[in-house]
Amino acid sequence: MFVYGRKAQYHETDQMGVIHHASYVKWMEEARVAFLDALGCGYEEIERQGVVVPVIEIAVSYKKPVRFAESFEVGVRVARYNGRILELGYTIRNRTQGTLCTVASSKHCFLKDGRMVSPKTELPALHAVLTRLSEEEKEDAQ
Amino acid sequence: MFVYGRKAQYHETDQMGVIHHASYVKWMEEARVAFLDALGCGYEEIERQGVVVPVIEIAVSYKKPVRFAESFEVGVRVARYNGRILELGYTIRNRTQGTLCTVASSKHCFLKDGRMVSPKTELPALHAVLTRLSEEEKEDAQ
Amino acid sequence: MFVYGRKAQYHETDQMGVIHHASYVKWMEEARVAFLDALGCGYEEIERQGVVVPVIEIAVSYKKPVRFAESFEVGVRVARYNGRILELGYTIRNRTQGTLCTVASSKHCFLKDGRMVSPKTELPALHAVLTRLSEEEKEDAQ
Amino acid sequence: MFVYGRKAQYHETDQMGVIHHASYVKWMEEARVAFLDALGCGYEEIERQGVVVPVIEIAVSYKKPVRFAESFEVGVRVARYNGRILELGYTIRNRTQGTLCTVASSKHCFLKDGRMVSPKTELPALHAVLTRLSEEEKEDAQ
Repeated sequence: MFVYGRKAQYHETDQMGVIHHASYVKWMEEARVAFLDALGCGYEEIERQGVVVPVIEIAVSYKKPVRFAESFEVGVRVARYNGRILELGYTIRNRTQGTLCTVASSKHCFLKDGRMVSPKTELPALHAVLTRLSEEEKEDAQ
Repeated sequence: MFVYGRKAQYHETDQMGVIHHASYVKWMEEARVAFLDALGCGYEEIERQGVVVPVIEIAVSYKKPVRFAESFEVGVRVARYNGRILELGYTIRNRTQGTLCTVASSKHCFLKDGRMVSPKTELPALHAVLTRLSEEEKEDAQ
Repeated sequence: MFVYGRKAQYHETDQMGVIHHASYVKWMEEARVAFLDALGCGYEEIERQGVVVPVIEIAVSYKKPVRFAESFEVGVRVARYNGRILELGYTIRNRTQGTLCTVASSKHCFLKDGRMVSPKTELPALHAVLTRLSEEEKEDAQ
Repeated sequence: MFVYGRKAQYHETDQMGVIHHASYVKWMEEARVAFLDALGCGYEEIERQGVVVPVIEIAVSYKKPVRFAESFEVGVRVARYNGRILELGYTIRNRTQGTLCTVASSKHCFLKDGRMVSPKTELPALHAVLTRLSEEEKEDAQ
């Protein structure tokens, strides 16, 4: 599993004394961008080819908080990919406390000029790697 | 259904030219806070009594975008309340375009000194109104 | 002076228990957008004509905090306008506490296709009103 | 000079296609926190001792943009420290483009229970290092 990590920032806290719940949605995006980079298909390159990859669904389950100055890591994996819709799974851990903080998922489509497109034709390298990773995921699940 | 609304701000956009998906999570919070106010149980008053109401789950389904300077409204309703866990449902509409943009939900618990507490004893007025609204919701569903 | 206002939101707080200092920079933008709207030159219309108005300088002096659920107002005025550079002045007041919170300024230029342009030719209506307001400001200063 | 750096994130962009100007204020904070860590006086430890270090002034001059996925670095130095007020200077560079993007400063005081305190008595180790760095700064300026 790909892992992205950093320290939680002061501007991400709220007056409850913990990281605000919307910040985790940004952390998922940061991890997703780093994951695509690691796959050799940087998101800025995808946009340069005229394709955007909007979020169409997110689900986040908050279990334990992360606090200012604590280190966290976000594990990202391809949960499902059918050539049209990409679903990613996320596990956020608090490295400082050694706790599992958040389990989450996001769904994405691929748009060009506002219309859904197939990564197979528009982004063949990304399509190949997502296909491979989703098949490995299915095998792991068995 | 309680409705909260305002205009989408420039700082809420991203380079895709639409409101960033994490902003909707903040809009849900803004609507929730206004909803509690309208119920006569302002969130600042809840915190003054030593109780916090963290988010333990969110799910957001993005259907249509909202763009800068467009007006949106967030409808909020009590989807479920069992005296311990509160689940709210949200419907975000783009008033400028007349479209349904986002359907979402959030789950919350009630904590005092880090331990789950019962609103029935800690916040009886809030408990009464949430109980009433969740019962109306069940009747509507029938 | 034009005045924009609303309530401070929970997601704008930090663990110091007050509104985070970066949020005020967003409030200045919200007030600026509302000010341009009130002048009949909405910012979305300016961008539709291919012109962007980036921030080239800000200065903010924080005097008193704003807290969650308190109401604030941002007064905006044209401090200077020379046909190229626009400088706005801001006064943020805490309506709930009746205190002056923040005094600030921002400077802006006008860009089209990445090059500085003159509002006089590109946005004549905006140029006229900014010129008038900056002259009134000079008279007030005397 | 202490240097903090990372990549610019997608959620930090706006529809102008560049990093939103309020994000730089957060980057200054991130760099300041890392700087205090490097000095051996982590900000979370300062708060644990009951002292907060609010921002009382910022000034930011934006020269060149940073875009999504570009790397930036923030240089931080002690510009002035008189035992009561701390002024930091910041230089933000776009590593990807090799450009100077932003020059900025921030001023801070030290509060305990809402009243200004002297770091000399409350945070002697921090006081010593800030005093030394501000004297080095004066010598450099000569």
